[in-house]
Parts: sequence; C-alpha cells; structure tokens
Amino acid sequence: MKKQPANLRVRLPVFLFLTEVIFIALFAAFVTYDEHADARFQTNQTNPMHNAVYRDYPFFTDIQVMIFLGFGCLLAFFRLYGFGGMVFNFLTATFAIQWAILVQGYFQFYHDGKIHIGVINLINAEFACAVVLISFGAVLGKTSPLQLLVMALLEVPVFAVTEWVVLKYLKINDAGGSILIHLFACYFGLGVTFVLYRSGLSEGHVKENTSYNSDILSVMGTLFLWVFWPSFNSALTLKGDDQHRAILHTFIGLSASTLTAFALSAMLNKNGKLSMADVQNVTLAGGVTVGASVDMMISPAAAYALGMLGCTACMLGYKYLSPFLARHCKIQDQCGIHNLHGLTGLISCAAGICAILMADEEVYGPSIYEIFTHRAPVEGDPKLYELQALIPGIQAGLGRTAQEQAIFQVAAVFSTIGLSALGGILTGYVLRLPLLGSPSDDFCFDDELFFEVPPDYDSPFQLGNKIATEESAA
Amino acid sequence: MKKQPANLRVRLPVFLFLTEVIFIALFAAFVTYDEHADARFQTNQTNPMHNAVYRDYPFFTDIQVMIFLGFGCLLAFFRLYGFGGMVFNFLTATFAIQWAILVQGYFQFYHDGKIHIGVINLINAEFACAVVLISFGAVLGKTSPLQLLVMALLEVPVFAVTEWVVLKYLKINDAGGSILIHLFACYFGLGVTFVLYRSGLSEGHVKENTSYNSDILSVMGTLFLWVFWPSFNSALTLKGDDQHRAILHTFIGLSASTLTAFALSAMLNKNGKLSMADVQNVTLAGGVTVGASVDMMISPAAAYALGMLGCTACMLGYKYLSPFLARHCKIQDQCGIHNLHGLTGLISCAAGICAILMADEEVYGPSIYEIFTHRAPVEGDPKLYELQALIPGIQAGLGRTAQEQAIFQVAAVFSTIGLSALGGILTGYVLRLPLLGSPSDDFCFDDELFFEVPPDYDSPFQLGNKIATEESAA
Amino acid sequence: MKKQPANLRVRLPVFLFLTEVIFIALFAAFVTYDEHADARFQTNQTNPMHNAVYRDYPFFTDIQVMIFLGFGCLLAFFRLYGFGGMVFNFLTATFAIQWAILVQGYFQFYHDGKIHIGVINLINAEFACAVVLISFGAVLGKTSPLQLLVMALLEVPVFAVTEWVVLKYLKINDAGGSILIHLFACYFGLGVTFVLYRSGLSEGHVKENTSYNSDILSVMGTLFLWVFWPSFNSALTLKGDDQHRAILHTFIGLSASTLTAFALSAMLNKNGKLSMADVQNVTLAGGVTVGASVDMMISPAAAYALGMLGCTACMLGYKYLSPFLARHCKIQDQCGIHNLHGLTGLISCAAGICAILMADEEVYGPSIYEIFTHRAPVEGDPKLYELQALIPGIQAGLGRTAQEQAIFQVAAVFSTIGLSALGGILTGYVLRLPLLGSPSDDFCFDDELFFEVPPDYDSPFQLGNKIATEESAA
Repeated sequence: MKKQPANLRVRLPVFLFLTEVIFIALFAAFVTYDEHADARFQTNQTNPMHNAVYRDYPFFTDIQVMIFLGFGCLLAFFRLYGFGGMVFNFLTATFAIQWAILVQGYFQFYHDGKIHIGVINLINAEFACAVVLISFGAVLGKTSPLQLLVMALLEVPVFAVTEWVVLKYLKINDAGGSILIHLFACYFGLGVTFVLYRSGLSEGHVKENTSYNSDILSVMGTLFLWVFWPSFNSALTLKGDDQHRAILHTFIGLSASTLTAFALSAMLNKNGKLSMADVQNVTLAGGVTVGASVDMMISPAAAYALGMLGCTACMLGYKYLSPFLARHCKIQDQCGIHNLHGLTGLISCAAGICAILMADEEVYGPSIYEIFTHRAPVEGDPKLYELQALIPGIQAGLGRTAQEQAIFQVAAVFSTIGLSALGGILTGYVLRLPLLGSPSDDFCFDDELFFEVPPDYDSPFQLGNKIATEESAA
Repeated sequence: MKKQPANLRVRLPVFLFLTEVIFIALFAAFVTYDEHADARFQTNQTNPMHNAVYRDYPFFTDIQVMIFLGFGCLLAFFRLYGFGGMVFNFLTATFAIQWAILVQGYFQFYHDGKIHIGVINLINAEFACAVVLISFGAVLGKTSPLQLLVMALLEVPVFAVTEWVVLKYLKINDAGGSILIHLFACYFGLGVTFVLYRSGLSEGHVKENTSYNSDILSVMGTLFLWVFWPSFNSALTLKGDDQHRAILHTFIGLSASTLTAFALSAMLNKNGKLSMADVQNVTLAGGVTVGASVDMMISPAAAYALGMLGCTACMLGYKYLSPFLARHCKIQDQCGIHNLHGLTGLISCAAGICAILMADEEVYGPSIYEIFTHRAPVEGDPKLYELQALIPGIQAGLGRTAQEQAIFQVAAVFSTIGLSALGGILTGYVLRLPLLGSPSDDFCFDDELFFEVPPDYDSPFQLGNKIATEESAA
Repeated sequence: MKKQPANLRVRLPVFLFLTEVIFIALFAAFVTYDEHADARFQTNQTNPMHNAVYRDYPFFTDIQVMIFLGFGCLLAFFRLYGFGGMVFNFLTATFAIQWAILVQGYFQFYHDGKIHIGVINLINAEFACAVVLISFGAVLGKTSPLQLLVMALLEVPVFAVTEWVVLKYLKINDAGGSILIHLFACYFGLGVTFVLYRSGLSEGHVKENTSYNSDILSVMGTLFLWVFWPSFNSALTLKGDDQHRAILHTFIGLSASTLTAFALSAMLNKNGKLSMADVQNVTLAGGVTVGASVDMMISPAAAYALGMLGCTACMLGYKYLSPFLARHCKIQDQCGIHNLHGLTGLISCAAGICAILMADEEVYGPSIYEIFTHRAPVEGDPKLYELQALIPGIQAGLGRTAQEQAIFQVAAVFSTIGLSALGGILTGYVLRLPLLGSPSDDFCFDDELFFEVPPDYDSPFQLGNKIATEESAA
C-alpha cells in the first residue's frame, strides 16, 4: 500500500490556534451582549419571561440537532469513512458557526461599534454553517480537515456578503432559505469540486461504498433532519400564523416527498428494490422545495405538490444528471448536493415567485404587508395609516407591486448563483495548495489517513478477502 | 437458496402514486388553514406569541422524535432486518400521518365544508400513526411494504371512527390514550397477525435473531421513547396543572417500570443475566399503564405502583402468555405488543376507572369539572354558576356521576377491543391478497428481499458459518 | 476461560424490589404535588399557560436526552461493553433520579410535612443523577450493576447533604454546577476507584479497547451532550437575561474547546492523527469550564478563553496526569473524569471567583443584586428600597462584599472536595463487599458476564484470532 505524506501534526494545530487567537481578539474587541442578554437592560418594566431567548432557543436547539447529529450521521455513510463524515462535520460546523457569528455579526448586528449577540445570532450563524456543510457534501471523503476549515473560512464571508446584499438591496422573501442557503451552498460546492476534479476517481473508488451499519447510521441522520426540518424552515419567519404555516408546509412537503421517493426508488431499480441512498437523501427534497414560499398562503395542497415535484426532480437528478455532470463536466458531486439542494432550490424559487405573483389582500388580509414588507405602502401614504389601524405592526415599505417583487426574486437567484459559483471556484483553487494536505486518490474515503483507527477497522472486509483468497487457492 | 418472486417494482409505485394523487386532490378540495395558521385572522387584537403553535409545537417535535427515531430504532432489532425495521417504519409513519390528517380531519376538524389544519391536527395524526406502528410490531419482518401501507390505509379510518364514536358518544377520559391508542393498536395488530398466521414459522426462523449492533440500536430507540413519553402522554391534556401532572406521572411510572424490568429480567433468567429484549421493551410498560389516569390526582405513589404493576404483567406476558398464544391460538405476535400495549392497557383502564370512582371535589377542588367535563352540572343548574365564579373556564357538562362515568369507560374498553379486533381480522384477510407481495417464509426477517444491500450484509455470519464448516470438515 | 461466579439472579432483584418498596412507601407517606401540579390550586386567577411546567419542561427534556442518550452512548465506547455502558447507565440513572427526588425533596422541597414535587424537582434530581453518572465513569467496566446501584444509593444522599450545606450555609454562586456537580462527582468517583484499585489491570486489559462502531456510537453521545449542554448549564439560572447569557457562554465555551481539542489531538499524536477518545471527551471540556460563571457578565471573549483553557488542561490531564495517577496513586480513572470534570471544574471555580471579584454595578446595573443575591443590602437598609424601585424583584440579602462572597466560594470548593472524596472512599469500601458481585479481572469490560449476548458477540475478533492462528500454523 502506498504511503501518504499528508501529516497534519503541525499544520492543523497552527491553523486552529491562529484562527482561535484571531477569533478571541475579535470577540474581545467587538462582541458584546444584545439587550436581551445584558444585565443592565433589566428594569422594573422587564418581564424576564418575555426575553427573546424563550422565542428563539427551542428553534436553536432543534437546528443544533440537525447540524451536529443530522448532518453528522447522514455524512457517515461510507463504510470506511464514518469517523471522517461525522467528526469532520463536527469540526467544520463548530468552526463555521464561530466565524459566522463574527462575520454576519459585522454585517447584520453591528451598531455603536459592537456586534451585539444573543441566541438569534446563533441561529443565523447556524444557517451559515448549514451552507458550509451542504457544500462539504460535494467533496466528502476527498478533502483533508484543513481543506474543510479553509473552505469554511472562505465560504462564510462570501455567504455573509451575498446574504447582506440580497437582503438589504434586493429585499427578497426567502423564509426557508431556498435561495440564500440551498442554492448558494450548492453552487459554491459545485464550484469547489469542479476545481478539485480528480480524474483518478472518474471510474469510482474501491472504498466508495457503504456497510450495513453505516447505511443505518446515515438513515438516522436523515430522520433527525426530517423531524426537525420544520424548525429550520420556520426559525426566522415572522412569529404567529406565519411560523405556524411554515411548520405545516414543511411537514406536508416532506411527507409528500418521502412517499414519492419510495415510489421512485422501487420504480427505477431494475429489481424493484429500495436503495438506501434514496431513502437517505431523496426523501428530504420536499423540505427544500417548500422553502421559498414556506410562510406564504400557498395552501396545504400546493405544499404537497411541491414536495412531490421536488422529490421527482431530485431523484431524476441522482439517476441521470449527476453521472452526466461527473462524466462530461468534471463535476464530481459526492453526495449529489446538486440534486438535493440545487434542482429543488430552483423549483422552490420558481414556486416562491408564483406565490408572490398570486398573493393578494383577499387571501392574506391586511397582514400581506407584514409578510411582503416591501409591498407595504411607503411612508406618508394614507393607505399605510388605514392598514396600521387594522394591524398596528405594519411598517412602511417600498410600495412594490407583486411583479416588481418577483423581478427582485429572479435577480436574487441569479446573483446568488453567480456569486456562489465564483466564490466556490476561487476557493477551489485555494484548496489546491499542497500545504493543505489533500489526500491522495488512494486514501480518499479512508479514515486511516487522519484518525487512529481501532483494531477492527476494515476487518470484515479483510477477512472476506482473506477467505476469498483461500477459496480461490483451494 | 430459493428465489422469491415478490417484486414491487410496479405495484409499490402504483399504490403510492395513486394514493398521493388522491391525497393531493382531497387536500386541494377540503383542507384549509385553521385560524391560528391563517393570515386573514391576524388583527390588531392578535398577539403573535399567543398563537397555538407555541403551545403545541414542542410536544409535536417530541412525538416526532418518538415516531421516527424511537420506533424506527426500536424496530430495527433484527440482525438482518435493520433496514426493514427502520425504513418501513419511516414509510408507514409518513403515510399514516398524511392519511390521518384527512380522515381525522373529517371527523374532528371539519366545519364550513373544510378541514381546518394546524399543528394540533398533526399531533392527533401522530397518535393515529402511533396506533399503526404499534400494530406493525405484531407483523414485523413478515410483511411487504405494500402490505404495511394497505394496513395503514385500512387501520387509520377504523381508528378514526372508533375514536370519534368513543369521544363523541361515550365521552370518556383517556388522556394518555391507553384505551384508544394502546388497546386499539394491540387488538388490531393481533387480529391481523392471527389471519396472517404462518405455520412455517411456528418453530422459529433462522434469521429471527439479533446482532450486537442491532441490539444497541434498538436500546437507543427505547431511550428515545422513554425520554419523550411524558410529552406523548400529556400532549392532549388540559393545559396547566393537568399537563404538569401528566408529565410527572409518566416519568414516575416509567421509572418504576424500568427498575422492575431489570429486577424481573435477572430473576427470570436461569443464569441471572439481563436480556436485551427485556431492556428494550419491558422498561417502557409504565408509560402505557399510567395512561388512562395520567392527568388525574392519583398521587405520585399510585403512578409508581402502576409502573411496577404494568411492568410485571408485561414481563410475565412475554415469558408465558406470548408463547402460549403463538402455540395454541395461532397468534404470532412478533414484538409482543400484547404484553407491552394490551395487558398494560387493560391495567391502565382499570386504574383509570378506580381513579374516576375516587375523584371528588375535596381532592380536585372545583377544577374536577374541568378534567371530568361530563360530570359538570348541566346547563341551567345553579351549581354551574357557582363553579364558574370560582373557575370561569368550566363548561356545562352532562351531570354524570362518577359511577356513570365509570360505566362509560367500561363500555369504551369493550367497544374499542371489539372494533379493533374485528377491523384487524378483516384487514388481515385483505393483506393476504397475493398482489400485495407478502414475503415467503424463507425471506422473512430479511432485508435482501426489498433492499439493495451493501457488500458486508450478513458477512460476519457467513464467515462464521464458513469457518464452522471448515472446522467440522477438519 | 475461567468461570466467573457473580450471578445476580437473586441479589439484583432483591435489592431492586426492596428499594422499590421503600421508595413507594416514602412516596405514599411524604410526596405530594407542588402548587403548579395540584388541581386544587386552580382558581379564577390562574392562567394555565403561566404554569411553571412551561418554563421548566423544555429544559427537563433536553437534560433527559443528555442523561439517557448522551451519557448512554458516550459510555458505550468499549467494543465488548456496549451493552454495559448504555444499559447500566439507563439503570443507574433511573434509580438515581428516583432516589434524588426523595432525598433532595427532603432537604429542599419539604414543608407542611410533605415533599412537594413538580418538574423543577425532576430537574434537580437529574443534576444529582448526572453526579452519579460522572462518578460511574471512573469505574466503568469494573463494577457489577449491583455495585453501581449501591454507589448511587450512597452518593445521592452525600451529594444532597453537601448541596444543601453549601447552598444554605455558604450561599454560593454556581449556576452551571461546576463546584457542586462536577467537582463533587469527580472526587467522589476518584475516591471510589481508589478503594477499588485492581493491580491486575495496571498493565491494561485485553478487552479495554474500542471498535469502529462503538467509537462512532460514543461520538454520537458526545454530540448529544454538546448540543444540549447549554440547557444543562442554564436550567437553574434566573429566568431572562441570566438564562440567555448562560446559553451563550456555554455555546461559546464548547465551541472554543472543540477547536482546541482537535488542534491538541493532532499535535500530541506522533503521526498527527486525531484520536477518537479526544473527540469524544476533550471537546466537551468547555461546557464544564464556563459553569461557575456561566450566568455572569463575563463577556463572550472570556467564555471563549475559558473554553480554550479548560480544554488544554483536560487534554494535558489525559496525556500526562491520568497515567501518573494510575501508576503512582492507585487511581484507575477509567474515563478520565478527573480531566474532564476535575481539572476543568477547578479552573471554572477560579474563573467564577474572578468574575465575582470583578462584578460591579457599572457592568450589571442594579440587577447585580439579583444574580449575587447575597450581596444585596440587608433588610432595612435604605439602599434596598432604592434598588427595589428600579427592579421590584430584588430581595434583601446578606450585604456581603465581593471579597466575602469570594471567600465563601473558596470554602465551598474545599468542603465539596473534602466531603466528596471522603464519601467516595467510604462508598468504595462498601462496594468491596463480596455480596455485590464485583466482576473478576478477567471479566472486566465484558458484556457476557451480565447479559445474554447475541451470536455475533465478539465474532470479528474471534474470527480474526482464528485466522491469525491458522496463519501462524501454516
């Protein structure tokens, strides 16, 4: 067996300590508590139970489970790369969240010379982290932990800038993050994997397969994601009926895509058998597809249809598009993120635009101007005061029409895809630095390279080979 | 090895697409948002944080974890049927919830020509789903996914009708669902497995055993169920002290049954060793046993006693009754649901009746008429106005005495058992249709029939046999 | 293979039934509902949604997941002791919580001749349970279940008394339980394992290793603990901004310690590889280190620094101190609790004292007297009325200065360590009673002694040996 020189004994600690020192310096210089976490804002008017923590924390923990256990188990599906999938996910997620607290904090929560943090920042940072982990899926098993950390280091700021531009200047509706999270993550990841193309793996790899236990573990990850996805899609919606709808739509969309995934999995298999890879991935498509319109009054049936549609696109993508991209476009998309996040994200954006075009006061009542804040009348418009008499929370907006809002959504889709693909390609070139210890082709999908492995590592297979050898000898 | 013709390549997709089309048509025609999820109900009086979603959603996610991860892992205990246990649970649960939203919606949430949905419907549908999954336990490993879906298709309406009849006409107290959920699920499942009796399996099956990893996985399922069971038992109680008591009693009951299960497991084993099957199942008995009286003022000690009692009955059932039923009554109850849900459910009903008979105003104060709504004075009774001065929420009831209420509880038990057993038997006959692809005896408890399995499937055992063969040859 | 006589068929059931009878008698005689769980306290003034259950229950379930799934999986890291790790954790935890409800109830919730229980008691009891489970880590694999139960039986009262003395007489700040939980648990466990010293294991044990699957399972446990640790550290803080800060600090501390753990793990390994034991344990150090000052205004950067510091101490402890203690002090600390809970706990106490010394009204505003209740002016002091005008919730205190409070903290640290080590040593002597069925050296770390094991138990290893034998024969 060829020896592999990638030894991270110096490089990984140096990188981590360096970034930690920078993080702590930035924390010390710029980060303080927001008013819900600061003891000085406690007065005789404050009811402790009205603290924002009680609104946000349950959603935060749900998303934490998704990030650390959901993604962690899901990515542990390779038989010899279970440590890598689960543990590098842990490392990368932790790193990305910290970095996102600082970067997003600067763009979104910075005032009076300080970044103000509370649980709401952590939720936002978890979304940035989810972006990194989705992109990670494209290069799973083919990257060193140092490469993953550098990817997170570069992706988070590109994401934060894109998010800030899109939210601040284009002002779009995207409660479930189909545009900002899923499309961004997908095209960034594809950009990275395009640059990291390995011709040596174009015919597959001997270790690129699953084991009975790793398949079950990965389904557990799917189930964690499935169960808590409604919290993910609804964490940043408006409170009240909007959040309630987001939960319902996500649940319905996931349910529809799950049944569709089982149907298609059996149908497209020549023996009518179910494939665990489909169960692990395609079932989740509905959660993405409902994203962009998740808080709107699209009707439960539309959420159902979106789930079915997204799942079908995702499944066909796995079956036909991914092999095509790998063969002809040098895009080796390891976990098929283009199917689960790209195709479904695009459908979601289209659905969101339809929902925007069809939204009117008859269906939403005056609260349409709370959901579509940019369609609210401008300051000074007498209509604004009428509306505020009905719902005091309505703020002055930009007076956009539905068509105008739709155009901004389209612009957001294209600029997100453009920025993310560009960012991904540039990041890919950085990741090719030899310093970052990329594993050789032989050592892809192999825990032995980066971990001390226990004595039974690979044993059933070695034994199997052993016996096979004996048999052929006999 | 005999070949098995059950190929679901056409049948499973046809069934799933057909039902999905019907579901989406029904959603489009009949399902709309309830007032907590509808943007039109937002007014200047609405406080978004008072939306029902904040009361219900935490309980919903807890039960989701139980359904998908708890049942999923618990049912994955066979060494060669881990995919089947976990994945068919996923499929069946998703299907059952959707279907229950529609069917229960028609019976319970239908007005003005529409089914109104919110998170509360999802919780109700999860209970219907739990019923299906418990029944699934009776036939685990011996049914095709198509059979399971057809079972869910038939069981959900029978359950919804029974539930509606019992709640609307008999008007019983059953907060934890011991009668409606556990007894129904048990006797339905026994009915099905009675009809599906396989004489070829009466001496056991070579694949009907566990592996080290599958046993651990199954205990994880038990722990998920254990941890969130208080949410299950309290999700539909009255809010406030009732829900608080339901949580306490469930926790205490489970604790007591866990200790008892360990004691009995060691005691009934000839070497004093613990059996993992006991740890996986019998520990949970207390959660069922406290169900029918879970929100009443039974005292913590009574919850403890119920946990011990239920656990003892459950353990003796596994030890003596299940083999008897299998041998003499043609009831092959794969997971022993009759012990964990049937015997304990009966004890729970009896305890509930005792608690009803002993309930008086001295113990409960005037809020007795909130818990036992049917014992509240009838409209017009001056006592009603007195009570409403003390607690405004008290509604006019039926003026039932404790004895009358107890009789209705008994009637509910018998009618539930009758309807469920009948429904199960009829469903069993439907499941025998050859079209549904029931696995042959040889392929029971075997993932290979319905799944693409990874290369190491069954490998330690094949290796073991291989070596055993070599040794016997030597 | 030597035969082992430890048969628990009689002893374990006798112990469990006996304690259950005592528990139920105590429940019947002394335990009643607290006012939030008692139907009689329902009046026309009561808003059911203001019940304390809604404040406490989400934290309770989070901690339940930590106790049963987090500890359960984490402790299942031995390749042949996965049942033992997970199942004895289940048994011991269930037992300890029940016992703690009674014992703590007597010290903290006893009035009018009754222990009043609600979910808040369960949370307190879970902390007592966590103490027992941490101590369990010191003797994992070397004790019978009966020994563990007896340890819980003795440890809970010693803990409850220590807690009561420290909180009632020394009146310290320790929101995250660094002193009371982590230091107590650590030195109690070390005391026990010191007395249970096995010279036969001083050179290690053939079964004292992990497998690929057990390592992954253990990381899952780590992730459960990681994800919900903020709930653990904040469950008993003041509501509002205090709880909010506790969540933030715990998250930041854990994040910092995770990155540090990865850096040090690669750096201290001669091949630069990551060790799964480090990933499983050392990543969690930050959660302990922030504990004693978790609700204070220490600044996010300080939480970050504490995470790094604690992690470094913990890692060096594993590398150098644990082997030293095992060799020279007869302290065989199986899971290295002295590193993860002792060293970090001491750092946390020191940090807490610094935070106390630096706390002033400028940073906290008047709510400083809510967090540091004992520094509030005494009854009658005019300053008290001024403060109460600003924040009505401020209660009269003891008028302690920061320095005085710091001295009490130091006293608490020493008395906790003293009482716990003494208690542990005495408990160790009790556990040496032959009656308790301690496993012989040969049967340590071996599930076969106490469990019915499935046919593939140890099979890859037996096969491996088999083949190795054949090869050496050939």
